[in-house]
Amino acid sequence: MTGTRGKFITFEGGEGSGKSTQIKTLSLFLKGRGIDHIITREPGGSDGAEELRTLMLTGDTDRWTAMSEALMVTAGRVDHVEKLIKPALEQGQWVISDRFYDSTKVYQGVAGGLGLENMVNLQKLALGDFTPDLTLILDIDVQKGLARAIQREGANNGNEDRFERKGLKYHQALREAYKAIAMSESDRCKLVDASGTIDQIADAIQQVIEPLIAGVGD
Amino acid sequence: MTGTRGKFITFEGGEGSGKSTQIKTLSLFLKGRGIDHIITREPGGSDGAEELRTLMLTGDTDRWTAMSEALMVTAGRVDHVEKLIKPALEQGQWVISDRFYDSTKVYQGVAGGLGLENMVNLQKLALGDFTPDLTLILDIDVQKGLARAIQREGANNGNEDRFERKGLKYHQALREAYKAIAMSESDRCKLVDASGTIDQIADAIQQVIEPLIAGVGD
Repeated sequence: MTGTRGKFITFEGGEGSGKSTQIKTLSLFLKGRGIDHIITREPGGSDGAEELRTLMLTGDTDRWTAMSEALMVTAGRVDHVEKLIKPALEQGQWVISDRFYDSTKVYQGVAGGLGLENMVNLQKLALGDFTPDLTLILDIDVQKGLARAIQREGANNGNEDRFERKGLKYHQALREAYKAIAMSESDRCKLVDASGTIDQIADAIQQVIEPLIAGVGD
Repeated sequence: MTGTRGKFITFEGGEGSGKSTQIKTLSLFLKGRGIDHIITREPGGSDGAEELRTLMLTGDTDRWTAMSEALMVTAGRVDHVEKLIKPALEQGQWVISDRFYDSTKVYQGVAGGLGLENMVNLQKLALGDFTPDLTLILDIDVQKGLARAIQREGANNGNEDRFERKGLKYHQALREAYKAIAMSESDRCKLVDASGTIDQIADAIQQVIEPLIAGVGD
């Protein structure tokens, strides 16, 4: 696929929506189709962004204001895009990222109280017109998602992620915000029902990916 | 002065404009007038902002893109304002800061190529309507300023500041940008001729400060 730009696919969703599992499954699927790709994640994904992630996620819950967090995540995102994502896409690789700018809109903008429009403006200011080709938003009932996340924590303790310690209402606000983004940017975003089995969700995702693969080499 | 909000004064200017010296001199002057005040600086000034400063200023010159730098400095600024500057002002203390948001407009916006308007918008998005009561812009011929800075480096080697290693044209652009800000926001900003002796510059600054002191307790 020399000369063809890769596709940039982002996964979004609340706690326990199964992003990690589905990213692994999608990776195997793409491999089977001979699509060269890399997997990355945010916050982080490049050396500079990982340092900012560490600074942001360690320490007291209220160490940073929501605005400082939003700016740090976005600073890391610019690094991630310029140092890793764009170079890979230009070489023809697909890039799959666990979270991207919709997380900032939802976590800091809506749940954090900074305002969705402010965070949309911040992303535009920082990234210009760079945007994912496809965003898969994994949607699941909040209580079911949290139960899954807690089960995972049991097997994988010592998790630094303090976002999981917030309340039910907070997670409900996240879910509604993701749905609103999926509605308002329906060309880029696909809302995927993440309440089924791993195979059911993977099938739904592969149906959305197929047309992108068909488009390779166009 | 219980119950009266303190004044927030920022110093801006290029290399060798004499900000540090004039801040010390102003501090003595305010002390003589019985004005309780603190001195701070950017990038940095609060614990979180200092960590961001370290991350930003160490390493290779091109480690961060101009946009990542602008976002990191602004994230630190929000921390600085919320944790140090606002609480001090609310207690009636004056706050003097060596650099504030005009540095981001000038260094990243104009010299760094991100655009003055973009950086003005970023500061507004991050800080809302919080603004200095007075900004003193120390203006000096670029070659004279750099000669002063180099002299200082000799006595104080091991300086981490990689901004000083840029060329003459870069510093000329900074000076012009500062002048443009002073013109467009003449209520808040005063351009101070910094080519004279330390005493001459201090006298000029004290003349600008007097009306603010007279206003205390109004």
